Amino acid sequence: MDHFADRLVAVIRAKGNPLCVGLDPRWESLPMEIRRRHGDDSLSAMAASYEEFCDRVLEIVAPLVPVVKPQSAFFEACGPDGMAVMQRLLRKARGLGLLTILDAKRNDIASTAAAYADAAFGGVSMAGRVHPVWEADALTVNPYLGRDAVEPFLQSARRAQAGVFVLVRTSNPGAGLFQDLVADGRPVYCHVAEAVAAWARENVGRCGLGDVGAVVGATYPAELAALRKLTPDVIFLVPGYGAQGGAAADVAPAFRPDGLGVVVNSSRGVLFPFKTDDPAWEQRVEEATRATVAALAPLS
Amino acid sequence: MDHFADRLVAVIRAKGNPLCVGLDPRWESLPMEIRRRHGDDSLSAMAASYEEFCDRVLEIVAPLVPVVKPQSAFFEACGPDGMAVMQRLLRKARGLGLLTILDAKRNDIASTAAAYADAAFGGVSMAGRVHPVWEADALTVNPYLGRDAVEPFLQSARRAQAGVFVLVRTSNPGAGLFQDLVADGRPVYCHVAEAVAAWARENVGRCGLGDVGAVVGATYPAELAALRKLTPDVIFLVPGYGAQGGAAADVAPAFRPDGLGVVVNSSRGVLFPFKTDDPAWEQRVEEATRATVAALAPLS
Repeated sequence: MDHFADRLVAVIRAKGNPLCVGLDPRWESLPMEIRRRHGDDSLSAMAASYEEFCDRVLEIVAPLVPVVKPQSAFFEACGPDGMAVMQRLLRKARGLGLLTILDAKRNDIASTAAAYADAAFGGVSMAGRVHPVWEADALTVNPYLGRDAVEPFLQSARRAQAGVFVLVRTSNPGAGLFQDLVADGRPVYCHVAEAVAAWARENVGRCGLGDVGAVVGATYPAELAALRKLTPDVIFLVPGYGAQGGAAADVAPAFRPDGLGVVVNSSRGVLFPFKTDDPAWEQRVEEATRATVAALAPLS
Repeated sequence: MDHFADRLVAVIRAKGNPLCVGLDPRWESLPMEIRRRHGDDSLSAMAASYEEFCDRVLEIVAPLVPVVKPQSAFFEACGPDGMAVMQRLLRKARGLGLLTILDAKRNDIASTAAAYADAAFGGVSMAGRVHPVWEADALTVNPYLGRDAVEPFLQSARRAQAGVFVLVRTSNPGAGLFQDLVADGRPVYCHVAEAVAAWARENVGRCGLGDVGAVVGATYPAELAALRKLTPDVIFLVPGYGAQGGAAADVAPAFRPDGLGVVVNSSRGVLFPFKTDDPAWEQRVEEATRATVAALAPLS
């Protein structure tokens, strides 16, 4: 298997755009026909509805986009059945040639971090055999616990030629509470970005990008530009495109001059462009995906 | 149901000590008899072994300690079957009168954070009914994403009279990479502690403690003392007792003058004080629990 960044660049080039579709299923937004089919009396029913909906979304978007990003929280909210659905969706996405980023924002120390990481990437060892769990191509990780909390994720990712996206600057209104605190003349998120750049340089692919990326919100284009300058060989995962207010021009500063280095995520804008009683909801999802791809294509 | 802090204080007083037993099952440390019974050929077998082991541990420690803390990573590493085991263990612990802290270090923004929080506490709503998922009494949360990322956890916790423990200062050697950066004359973790204190003051129980606690490692007793002064109405969850190097004297500065305000966690020291082929492993767990309780009892 190739280096994570090279695999990412290859699939972005093959599809001609850097769009990542976030799989954030929400019960109240699902097509009525799917909800009716599975009923509304248990979390197993919710999980089954999420599976049918996301299955169809994966089939619709797979020819159009390079990457999907299941949001672990919504599957966890259905309990163990939801986690089983997330596992099958990750497998299905891989089978469709999509790169997968598991958005779980995991974090812990030492062997506990390693347990999360082995589950996300190469699998869990028992009695000399390795058992896959999520088999994601990449995982989002929260850096607050520091160096030896992030490193187990890197080690596990590298064994599986996978990637890690570290939260650097998030797009929510209250993100600045700690991320913007100024230490040694620059905000905390720049310190995190510097650490990410150092980790990324440890293992750079042929494309010139490392296997450690940064999650950077699209709501602050000036910050995106500054971070791009600070970390030229780091892949940016930019959420907040579409629904959270970002537009193509806002994302532009994240790209390197060679048009690489960015994955742009859209969740609600692509997943839920329909009214729940619209019998043509699948067509709406395809149209929304094509429109989002078209808006982004000139950038990459 | 009573305020989280009052419930915590009541169960600590009833047991006469503030020990929390961390449920961190590790395959290679389990009693051989349990591993043999379930086999070693699948993650379902691993999950079944974890369940049998933790079931017995819960029965052994329930008469002795007030709190248990399942570590989500080890159950997630067994896949969806592991999450089902974690769910059953949380239920069993509650049935035994133990307070439960789900150690999952969750974090995300807005409705995504709310999905994690509803799963952890009161349950997930569908069609006018609420379905419980983890039903924990408290959850650990990572603060890096800021104000509006922590607040959905608080709102959900408060609806369920549950608690939130925010990571403030962790006990790992590399914790300082971002936590110790100095902004406005004090380290980042003190800024986090101040935010935690403000959140805790929003909802204080009769005992004078809030429903928002702080995770503070026991490896830096001077920091513990300073943080206790800074945040008098915040409950501290102190991991790193025993295996990670902390001793009773190191934990002492975390306590308020009234002997309250602390939950001291021990995982490996209590869970795995035996050789895997020791037929009397249950007795060893009980002895280790009693010894740890005895060392802590004078503090509270």
